[in-house]
Amino acid sequence: MDEFEIIKKYFSIHALDNKSSLDLNDDIFFDKSKGLIISVDTYVNGVHFIDFKKPDLVIKKIIRSSISDLICKGVEPKYYFISGSGNKKDFSEVNLAKISKSLKQEQLKFGISLSGGDTVYSNKLSFTITSVGYSNKVIFRNKAKVNDDIYVTGNLGDSNMGLKVLKNKIKLVKKDRNYFEKKYFFPEINKILAKKLFLFANCSIDVSDGLIDDLEKLINKQSLSYQLNLNNIPISKNLEKIIKTKKLKKSSLISKGDDYQILFTASENKNRIIKKVSKNLGIKISKIGKILRNSQKKQIFNEKGVKFGLKLKGYKHKF
Amino acid sequence: MDEFEIIKKYFSIHALDNKSSLDLNDDIFFDKSKGLIISVDTYVNGVHFIDFKKPDLVIKKIIRSSISDLICKGVEPKYYFISGSGNKKDFSEVNLAKISKSLKQEQLKFGISLSGGDTVYSNKLSFTITSVGYSNKVIFRNKAKVNDDIYVTGNLGDSNMGLKVLKNKIKLVKKDRNYFEKKYFFPEINKILAKKLFLFANCSIDVSDGLIDDLEKLINKQSLSYQLNLNNIPISKNLEKIIKTKKLKKSSLISKGDDYQILFTASENKNRIIKKVSKNLGIKISKIGKILRNSQKKQIFNEKGVKFGLKLKGYKHKF
Repeated sequence: MDEFEIIKKYFSIHALDNKSSLDLNDDIFFDKSKGLIISVDTYVNGVHFIDFKKPDLVIKKIIRSSISDLICKGVEPKYYFISGSGNKKDFSEVNLAKISKSLKQEQLKFGISLSGGDTVYSNKLSFTITSVGYSNKVIFRNKAKVNDDIYVTGNLGDSNMGLKVLKNKIKLVKKDRNYFEKKYFFPEINKILAKKLFLFANCSIDVSDGLIDDLEKLINKQSLSYQLNLNNIPISKNLEKIIKTKKLKKSSLISKGDDYQILFTASENKNRIIKKVSKNLGIKISKIGKILRNSQKKQIFNEKGVKFGLKLKGYKHKF
Repeated sequence: MDEFEIIKKYFSIHALDNKSSLDLNDDIFFDKSKGLIISVDTYVNGVHFIDFKKPDLVIKKIIRSSISDLICKGVEPKYYFISGSGNKKDFSEVNLAKISKSLKQEQLKFGISLSGGDTVYSNKLSFTITSVGYSNKVIFRNKAKVNDDIYVTGNLGDSNMGLKVLKNKIKLVKKDRNYFEKKYFFPEINKILAKKLFLFANCSIDVSDGLIDDLEKLINKQSLSYQLNLNNIPISKNLEKIIKTKKLKKSSLISKGDDYQILFTASENKNRIIKKVSKNLGIKISKIGKILRNSQKKQIFNEKGVKFGLKLKGYKHKF
């Protein structure tokens, strides 16, 4: 069973009477009466980050990953809790000082405040981040409409290329290596876009497990189909260069996850306002496809009409 | 460094401007303007529970431990999040079904609702529980007054005796073994006492690390001393029997932690109302000592005037 099947079978039943849980299907808890939003995520060494050689960078990555869950739903994070399990080496004074410095920088960058947590002994390093925000509304999943355009912010694929570099699965020159490593450790989180999403988005999610996986999750309780245009899926100039020089396939690089960009759908008539917000905030927002009736086939194609299967699967937490 | 030194040196600085964090010194986050209380705790296999042979019992224990943080501050828990890291065996369908059943029972017993969480792969089993409650007031730490009486609910020491039994450090007959194992896995959490605490308690904490450790934490920012009466420290008839038959020392058994009883101080004139609440709710509340000026020596003595040193230390998470 994967994570989602587990949640469905053994946990969702306990949230039936709890509307704020959003059926455990939305990455967030939202108590409308209190205007409270909470997200909880666990990050395990070797699973969610490759090692702890650079604790300052790992901490930034996991905090951004956590607050991304709120931001993509239109909510500005305000508080966070960090619970770390690790050994003496993981939490050496040198590492603690680096972690502490990173927390300070992230707090300043995103306007969040440390509010609690835990440090406990374990021979396996992991962190659980709880993020909290206040808002009287959120953007849900499963509110897509037929003919909605599908949009995504920023670029996809850079983070996964960074992971490949860090795992020595691809050899790049130093300049490129640095670029992609940074993209892996410092995902762009568009906090300034959060509140603007209400102007146009019908439903939204962050791209954490991979474009296709997250698009599937975005509409997992709706009977809908979609088409994506491979050529419109945004990638960086740097990734474009690597694709050319290394003769890689774009289709194999854009749905691997860890991007933390915002994936949303919007009615066709929102195109103008989306362009305006994109320009005003300096945030790239690309139209990458369309929501279709369930009777139509899910597919990805390029401008030449070449179709790709939907095997662009990302990362799934299997048990 | 122990957990508290780590928090002080590397984390508290990031909570300076965040009043709701209570300086990371109160086990809870309390946003007074929103009436929101949150507690986050991590439980690691082999550290906070001895193994996962009885997943149904372990889950109950850690959920009670988590909501105890709120209840001892006068707050009724309403929501909880559970984040589990483990492997295929930990999260087998048999175990998941047991966990699921326990969640249902605890939800009914304590009026709490599952609100989210995470299940991720790790070769080391751990859980992080986030508990949430709403209240416009809480009972803080560090509000003890000179001459306050010190009280504790229920009995101390049973849970630790249960741990000794489970670890085969003491041999008992089956009936006693069952009694103490149950006390280890099912700490009594007095939810009905939560709101009553405001009638009399000046400050409060739950006894998780051990009576003396938690008493020290309760007044860790105050210049105060205390005396405790060993004879008044409440233990069960069952533990009394074991002490006699096994010729153990009471003083070595009552400050080992995992009791999850409520430790609080109250002005002398609250004695009558405390007795009344105790009787009405059927919850044992014992007066065990007194808060003194800092100039007086911290000590524990029995009725015969025999003094004990303050070596009744409990469990500390060392790094």
